Amino acid sequence: MAVVQAGMLSVAEARARILAGLRPTAAEIVPLAEAWNRVTAAPVTARLTQPPHDVSAMDGYALRAVDGALGATLRVVGSAPAGHPWDGTLGQGEALRLFTGSVMPHGADAIVIQEDVDRDGETITVREAAAPGRHIRRAGQDFAAGDVLAPSGKRLNARDIGLLAAGNHPWVTVHRRPRVAVLATGDEIALPGEPIPRGGIVSSNAHALAALIRARGGDPMVLPVSADDVTMLIEGARAAEGADLLVTTGGASVGDHDLVAGALQTSGLVLDFWKIAMRPGKPLMAGRMGEMSMVGLPGNPVSALVCAILFLLPAIERLSGLPGDPPPVSEAILGTPLPANDHRADHLRATLVADGSGPPVVTAYGRQDSGMVRVLAHSNALILRAPHAPALPTGATVDVIRLDLLGL
Amino acid sequence: MAVVQAGMLSVAEARARILAGLRPTAAEIVPLAEAWNRVTAAPVTARLTQPPHDVSAMDGYALRAVDGALGATLRVVGSAPAGHPWDGTLGQGEALRLFTGSVMPHGADAIVIQEDVDRDGETITVREAAAPGRHIRRAGQDFAAGDVLAPSGKRLNARDIGLLAAGNHPWVTVHRRPRVAVLATGDEIALPGEPIPRGGIVSSNAHALAALIRARGGDPMVLPVSADDVTMLIEGARAAEGADLLVTTGGASVGDHDLVAGALQTSGLVLDFWKIAMRPGKPLMAGRMGEMSMVGLPGNPVSALVCAILFLLPAIERLSGLPGDPPPVSEAILGTPLPANDHRADHLRATLVADGSGPPVVTAYGRQDSGMVRVLAHSNALILRAPHAPALPTGATVDVIRLDLLGL
Repeated sequence: MAVVQAGMLSVAEARARILAGLRPTAAEIVPLAEAWNRVTAAPVTARLTQPPHDVSAMDGYALRAVDGALGATLRVVGSAPAGHPWDGTLGQGEALRLFTGSVMPHGADAIVIQEDVDRDGETITVREAAAPGRHIRRAGQDFAAGDVLAPSGKRLNARDIGLLAAGNHPWVTVHRRPRVAVLATGDEIALPGEPIPRGGIVSSNAHALAALIRARGGDPMVLPVSADDVTMLIEGARAAEGADLLVTTGGASVGDHDLVAGALQTSGLVLDFWKIAMRPGKPLMAGRMGEMSMVGLPGNPVSALVCAILFLLPAIERLSGLPGDPPPVSEAILGTPLPANDHRADHLRATLVADGSGPPVVTAYGRQDSGMVRVLAHSNALILRAPHAPALPTGATVDVIRLDLLGL
Repeated sequence: MAVVQAGMLSVAEARARILAGLRPTAAEIVPLAEAWNRVTAAPVTARLTQPPHDVSAMDGYALRAVDGALGATLRVVGSAPAGHPWDGTLGQGEALRLFTGSVMPHGADAIVIQEDVDRDGETITVREAAAPGRHIRRAGQDFAAGDVLAPSGKRLNARDIGLLAAGNHPWVTVHRRPRVAVLATGDEIALPGEPIPRGGIVSSNAHALAALIRARGGDPMVLPVSADDVTMLIEGARAAEGADLLVTTGGASVGDHDLVAGALQTSGLVLDFWKIAMRPGKPLMAGRMGEMSMVGLPGNPVSALVCAILFLLPAIERLSGLPGDPPPVSEAILGTPLPANDHRADHLRATLVADGSGPPVVTAYGRQDSGMVRVLAHSNALILRAPHAPALPTGATVDVIRLDLLGL
């Protein structure tokens, strides 16, 4: 673990402390059609065997392999489209017209595909010799009744939805979407399109965080902006009642006007207040108000979003029933040199170019001021710089968080 | 371009023909809070300059740099929290208490941060000399009014939402979500939980495709399953009215019971019917019914999903206002050898392991039968094998589509 300044937590320590206070949401039942991107709260097992019988894998003819030599002629005794099994037993010299998915008839042990026969009225002539078992999908080849199709704690993708459908599940037991309330605070901020106070700015945190929460499968609830006023802050926190997690922005610093901690403590908040050895961002609050967990992010929009990626995303995943892993880190090659780092872990906004062959190349923006929302929006990667990391030349390998792959 | 068998299209040719018939949906206005993952239909320009004034980047004190030598003592004449600018002009020997985001007062040209002063009542003593401009964010440092914050045709991520908020946009002009109707066909299929006909199976295509459409920002409409019956097929296609795209599954083969093409042609479908030199999948339909485009996927669930990844996803992106690029391809190292390929491009279901350092290792499943939905669901990559690709040893480099990164 990287050495950090006394009194400061590392990023990993802070994340572990936040996660330790979180439990997955309760289970609910959703229709399969609504289960995409939800996290299973119980294993899902197959309710049937697939395929239920031996079936044809191709359009063609079922026959006895011994009858299917090159040049053999067979009599077509019927047709069994998928969904319309043929009840007879295939005899010597007989063939049955089949299609992909058709149930194999009794007596047959081979398929010749339609491209490999000449058909003339009710007879076929074999143009490629049949082989026993060829083009037959055996009963249970895909899965058997009782097989686990999805374990508990799996986020369901489109292919999982298909598999659960095939396993005959119209409903799925999943964790409730975490409800995450967002409370932006500050006398100086106004929502987009509303009158901006003198010396004020437009608030970007609440809606950026709501989008990020939605992108991770959470259910955001954006509360009205709170001024730096104890009464308003307490009201804001009360409005979050019923949420699994309250996220505040602003007021987590040590300035005279950072009231959030004090106000919320009078409302029953049990609070941890941390300085984290990182940049952008440093102050972070974490705590609990009754059943609701709370994370206090910096007010600076770049710090708020970077801290959200590092701390809030794993928290949402943990609430969703997933482990809450840190954002995935991969390697890239520096496109320009980097100076040595100080005692705080840095997260440099950067542009990464990956052409699919060889490692991607990543170049940090020249200006890393945390006031630059546009630079963050236009970055597709964060370069991770450990505390006291040495200067690095062009071409050196660095760790990055790829924002493009996170869909954030 | 790879050589393909006469009469067959390559994957790239088929994709280009499908895309050529598609136009982006019309524009609509959505609230910023709903704009995540939507595609802009017009450039979004900043409606204000950010920051609007020179502001402090830190908690500290504004002063004249010439007054801020090491050990200097200054008189604190007031305080200007963010959102509460101070109207005076700072004189010689004076300091103003500031916080992050506070407007710089007239007369001041430097900030000393609070950690670098000793405060005693209404005076401060400087412990680290001030430098002109230090810790000041200049007006317009982030962006200026009129700057393009997001171009037209950009899918908006959470950081973009923050940037558009900061640029004072409560509404965003985006392309309407493509409405995609899904019509699964076949006598043998039943929806999950419903009675399964004799010799029948549970339908997995419709809901897997709906999930995939939703994952790509489309608006899926799942139509009732249609039997292999001309009247039902025509009714199904009519139920899709108003959709931008109709996707069918099944009935795109050349078997006797593949009725979809014939039925839809009587409903005004102008149809192309293609054999594509690929596996899994081969038959594909594409066409147009009045204003609605149509793509006919194979009925086999693995073929349907692989074809959807290759053809339907780019189609949805094109309808959404994006170019409709093929799924991204990257390189991986083979974990086991591969045999030579035949004349059809193959898409091997595979497991990819990436630890973040070095190229990922990819291993194809031993059984590639296209009836195996579970293998596809548990794969996280498709290995691309060009027509006539030679056998490859363990350790060779191959192209893959990473399903995990596609969120599918």
